[in-house]
Amino acid sequence: MKRTKIIHLLDADHAIDEVLVKGWVRTRRDAKGFSFVELNDGSCLKNIQVVADASIADYANVKQLSTGAAAAVTGRLVPSQGGGQKWEIQAREVTVIGLADEDYPLQKKRHSDEFLRTIAHLRPRTNKYGAAFRIRSQLAYAVHSFFRKRGFIYLHSPIITGSDCEGAGEMFRVTALDLTTIPKKDGKIDFSGDFFGKEVSLTVSGQLSAEMFALALGDVYTFGPTFRAENSNTSRHVAEFWMVEPEMAFCDLAENMDLGQALIQYLAGYLRDRSAEDIELFARFVDKDLKARIDGILAADFIRLPYGEAVEILTAAKRKFDHAPAWGRDLQSEHERYITEEHFKRPVIIYDYPKEIKPFYMRVNDDGRTVAAMDILVPGIGEIIGGSQREERLDVLTARMDEMGLSREDYWWYIDSRRYGSVPHSGFGMGFERVMMLMTGIQNIRDVLPFPRTPGSIEF
Amino acid sequence: MKRTKIIHLLDADHAIDEVLVKGWVRTRRDAKGFSFVELNDGSCLKNIQVVADASIADYANVKQLSTGAAAAVTGRLVPSQGGGQKWEIQAREVTVIGLADEDYPLQKKRHSDEFLRTIAHLRPRTNKYGAAFRIRSQLAYAVHSFFRKRGFIYLHSPIITGSDCEGAGEMFRVTALDLTTIPKKDGKIDFSGDFFGKEVSLTVSGQLSAEMFALALGDVYTFGPTFRAENSNTSRHVAEFWMVEPEMAFCDLAENMDLGQALIQYLAGYLRDRSAEDIELFARFVDKDLKARIDGILAADFIRLPYGEAVEILTAAKRKFDHAPAWGRDLQSEHERYITEEHFKRPVIIYDYPKEIKPFYMRVNDDGRTVAAMDILVPGIGEIIGGSQREERLDVLTARMDEMGLSREDYWWYIDSRRYGSVPHSGFGMGFERVMMLMTGIQNIRDVLPFPRTPGSIEF
Repeated sequence: MKRTKIIHLLDADHAIDEVLVKGWVRTRRDAKGFSFVELNDGSCLKNIQVVADASIADYANVKQLSTGAAAAVTGRLVPSQGGGQKWEIQAREVTVIGLADEDYPLQKKRHSDEFLRTIAHLRPRTNKYGAAFRIRSQLAYAVHSFFRKRGFIYLHSPIITGSDCEGAGEMFRVTALDLTTIPKKDGKIDFSGDFFGKEVSLTVSGQLSAEMFALALGDVYTFGPTFRAENSNTSRHVAEFWMVEPEMAFCDLAENMDLGQALIQYLAGYLRDRSAEDIELFARFVDKDLKARIDGILAADFIRLPYGEAVEILTAAKRKFDHAPAWGRDLQSEHERYITEEHFKRPVIIYDYPKEIKPFYMRVNDDGRTVAAMDILVPGIGEIIGGSQREERLDVLTARMDEMGLSREDYWWYIDSRRYGSVPHSGFGMGFERVMMLMTGIQNIRDVLPFPRTPGSIEF
Repeated sequence: MKRTKIIHLLDADHAIDEVLVKGWVRTRRDAKGFSFVELNDGSCLKNIQVVADASIADYANVKQLSTGAAAAVTGRLVPSQGGGQKWEIQAREVTVIGLADEDYPLQKKRHSDEFLRTIAHLRPRTNKYGAAFRIRSQLAYAVHSFFRKRGFIYLHSPIITGSDCEGAGEMFRVTALDLTTIPKKDGKIDFSGDFFGKEVSLTVSGQLSAEMFALALGDVYTFGPTFRAENSNTSRHVAEFWMVEPEMAFCDLAENMDLGQALIQYLAGYLRDRSAEDIELFARFVDKDLKARIDGILAADFIRLPYGEAVEILTAAKRKFDHAPAWGRDLQSEHERYITEEHFKRPVIIYDYPKEIKPFYMRVNDDGRTVAAMDILVPGIGEIIGGSQREERLDVLTARMDEMGLSREDYWWYIDSRRYGSVPHSGFGMGFERVMMLMTGIQNIRDVLPFPRTPGSIEF
């Protein structure tokens, strides 16, 4: 007999005489003459209640089932007598698949997130983390679904890279050299004997690769892991996280903003419609504002605000910031949160940032002092998307590279793309973990990743 | 006016008075009084033919359009006069978006795959590589679609790892240490000051992580990059490639084989139904046997053959192998190809391999000398899937770990999973690039990856 997943049992529209269910025991309660066992198989948040009468042949097995044990139950699916669930199983046979040692750490009580991080291999067995990782899977699928509907090609951009895209922060080095005897030449490390024959790192962005493909296939996107070796122990930083990076040929900054808004709204709507039960858990126990925030994202177009006006709003604000806002300075997280959470109370797209604070590949505007950059800010998170129209003009691009001390030789292939049928194109990066935090209310990025990588922490 | 992608124009069911198309020039031919321009925007293999009459105001622009240049054309979509295409555009306005320098390397002639690898940033602009990367995107989506239909949860298993899953070949080390002054202690490298405080590497498999999640959520899968620092310069090896790894709780070896077969057949059918035009290119120009091979995959159940019988077939074969087959030795690629291509001429699943040649986590069979492993072999490729039922019995697992010299302390969390509700579970790994090679007939793995990473090669 084939097992039925609990999600399908709970969705039944009539009683079923014989079903087989397998799962893990969440709780067992014994009464006079029978036991209740709550069984969960991870297919959904809810358990199925098993009622095992003391008269069944296997009743001794039932009495072995402690929290965390695995069991198989055959029996009849019937309308539940008690409240709280529509269906329950009247057990006919109960088999122990695997017992749980007495020190099973997930006994029925609340555990702190900090504690659960130390048992990241077990935490998906809790209601909260099971729901979080089902939502993560749902959102990942929604990302692919969104782009596919629009005819985008999915690109696997490389993880090991010889170039430093944005000069973005610290990069992890990758090597196959024997570290005990690093070869040197003229006082410098000699990478000629390393696997790739040169110094290489873990990627911080797939953008430059994606540009090459957008200039061939039109609309493309990446969705893969990216890395930062920043030694920051905050609730917002991890060393390894997933990024979604669309890149579109024949696309200007306004269309880029359109796509960013459409993507975030699509993800919010997708989740609201298809993960109602899991979202409900977060709305009840983690973030009372969750549903209002998701509704707010879906309610209207995002505000579009030039950087200059954002600075004016900030300087006029009756609010003391740690960093004084001023034209030419980058917006700090406190500024972004103020604008989206307090001033507008809505998602906001800030665009046209000063040239000096942005990377070389962003398109210089006609004013000569700003670039066609845009960041999307959302309440509860701050920046969730950062993007730009790319500099497609060969002369402007190479001049900016020279200014910023980037080697034209290292980027010959990138420059090539501006020599052969260069076209206006745009793209952005969206941190997938930030989307997870936005959509669940989880406050620590460590808790939306299966096995987070942070300074000093790589246990699993 | 919004541009229309060429894939939609070619699919039109009636003439359209005004369309805007943007793309790159594949060829231009001038005739007396007008020019033909073949425009491609990457949305599909086919170009749209633009007919530009010398009488249009922009005709001087048309004359500038060499191969590789980018242009925008507005005009009327009409039934094509000539053969070869259903629709063409009678141009009203032609704008040059970006010219192509004269040395554009993709002039209209055949280029070798070897040459195109040296311009991997431009090769997606060719028919062959454009088609290959559209197919790659299609297949990636099909993977997600397959698992989603079956209720699997997608898992982002970590890339940077502190454990060496299979002891599988060489691993790349990852470090944030300054390599010029590696700290040492008692003659060994002191990783305590490194980012994670210990030696870490790039993952070779997400399996162990996936097992932890399968034992919580039921059915899960990973789909992400994996790495090998093997210094092999062959047409089958790269340092960075993508793997699909499903892992299923309450699943035995036979069900694992069922899933592997279903997955490969689903991908083949999906592609045949939805990428007919791109597949046709490969069937015509790359691999005459392609369609027969895809049909063969779909035609019937895969053969299931115990390893012992496979060895008997090989020893009985009237064929000289470089490595003599014998019970207890691993099957070589030449053996696998013989069995699937010559003996059965069909996909074959070989199972129950000798314990000694397989990793510690595979379930020991009742015979005590084999494990519940299975490999799926397909004609043209050889092994495309390798998997097993996992050892769920705590005592057997730890005994095998001891035998193979694996530290119980390092794998405490993995062992934990056998102490708390351990259940029979199974999974496999499928090399995504091998699927690409199977479905296109491309012979070199470097040509199915956007920017392949091989020894000494990391240009882009």
